[in-house]
Amino acid sequence: MAIRQRGIASRVIGISRTKKTINKAKKAGAIDDGFCDFKPLSDCELIILCSPVNIIINTLSKIKPFIAPGTIITDVGSTKSEIVKSAGMILPKGADFIGAHPLAGSEKSGIDNANGGLFEKSLCVLTPLKANSKKNIRRLESFWLALGSRVSFLTPSAHDKITSFTSHLPHLIAFNLLESIPAVDLRYAASGLRDAARIAASDPLVWADIFISNRAAILKSAGKFQTHFDKFLKLLKSGDSKRIIQVIKKAKFKRDTFLNKVNE
Amino acid sequence: MAIRQRGIASRVIGISRTKKTINKAKKAGAIDDGFCDFKPLSDCELIILCSPVNIIINTLSKIKPFIAPGTIITDVGSTKSEIVKSAGMILPKGADFIGAHPLAGSEKSGIDNANGGLFEKSLCVLTPLKANSKKNIRRLESFWLALGSRVSFLTPSAHDKITSFTSHLPHLIAFNLLESIPAVDLRYAASGLRDAARIAASDPLVWADIFISNRAAILKSAGKFQTHFDKFLKLLKSGDSKRIIQVIKKAKFKRDTFLNKVNE
Repeated sequence: MAIRQRGIASRVIGISRTKKTINKAKKAGAIDDGFCDFKPLSDCELIILCSPVNIIINTLSKIKPFIAPGTIITDVGSTKSEIVKSAGMILPKGADFIGAHPLAGSEKSGIDNANGGLFEKSLCVLTPLKANSKKNIRRLESFWLALGSRVSFLTPSAHDKITSFTSHLPHLIAFNLLESIPAVDLRYAASGLRDAARIAASDPLVWADIFISNRAAILKSAGKFQTHFDKFLKLLKSGDSKRIIQVIKKAKFKRDTFLNKVNE
Repeated sequence: MAIRQRGIASRVIGISRTKKTINKAKKAGAIDDGFCDFKPLSDCELIILCSPVNIIINTLSKIKPFIAPGTIITDVGSTKSEIVKSAGMILPKGADFIGAHPLAGSEKSGIDNANGGLFEKSLCVLTPLKANSKKNIRRLESFWLALGSRVSFLTPSAHDKITSFTSHLPHLIAFNLLESIPAVDLRYAASGLRDAARIAASDPLVWADIFISNRAAILKSAGKFQTHFDKFLKLLKSGDSKRIIQVIKKAKFKRDTFLNKVNE
């Protein structure tokens, strides 16, 4: 939708499992044409895989026969190491797969929630490897800039480590926070909990995939959180208000300094 | 501000430690007049204590000499057991203290962030005891209804148990989540983390007070969260995507069912 609204490509095609999704995407103005098979990919200069992480990986071998020489293949998956590694193993030698992760979106998913302005003022992380064509990296960077995004470069593993803290851990926490609260108590919830738990409404299949795909990094950041949480409870048990205030002040400073304006 | 905008009282006075705050409150239209001492309380029909929990408790003995017979004393503190118990011990026999907690507000505090519409469509929990005058309970209920709030009744301890889950635990988590994330990584944060961590910008003194005042209940709900979190990490370690999806689905259901519209 964003590509067509900004006139970035001469033609956008969509490939989906169902005709129904294709019809919706056409009606929404997101695609010029749509298909339920991979053959039309051989005409494409840029292929963007947009599905849950493990489906992206499964799709690589399915699209392999249809990739024309010179085509850039990329994705929008929330974890990068596994996808980039799989692409290297599965795709043919000449194929140029460059991992991408636009830090944009909401708890809503599917074509019904599509929004052509989604990437404006957002940040897109690209995770190219040394083997990638420099020209294609620049082309993909230009593509995201043209969509209104800023672009950062990280290695796949640096990306996965950072997002394990900034995205995966908050989701992990939100799901378990809601799991912990008795349903009958939720009528007393106010805006604090509503906002803290917004991301708990995210798609279960997408997030189970992300967690499993990045589990090594997530287990580390979750462990760090557990350590801090446990330490805080000990301060609380001993009634150490002075040190409790210190921790809260540091957290508030981080929030006020770095998170008042974030990548949308 | 809300009282004056709705014309609920013939006169509203504010008592603050500093003349500066009083002048701001006057300028903002929140009070008719303001003072830095407690004497004017003897003319009041309704006294509302609005400060961090332990300051509310400290203030009780200070206002004690100035409470006229028939005056209703109430508060807006986020925990109720300790305050209601202290009021019972400190205030004179005839004084009618009725605990209140409007589930409204944001991470911002102080007269500079005052908003006369804050209580509209919100929920206010009253925690009267059997000793309270039935007439005064009704009067206080009418007061909150007149401010645009709905009103619920709970015992102080039921209130503290519920809010330990719906409010105190999410704050505890938000502070420790930010404590866990390396500051350098925060430039990669997106709207998910921003919203999840909004409440981490809350006032440190207010929240240290709330935590300590309600620590017994909070330690229990935090323990429940720790158990669920730990269990989830074990599922992640073993790659049990089926059960991970189950947990996320349950959390998403709770979020979608009970938290899409909450008390503002």
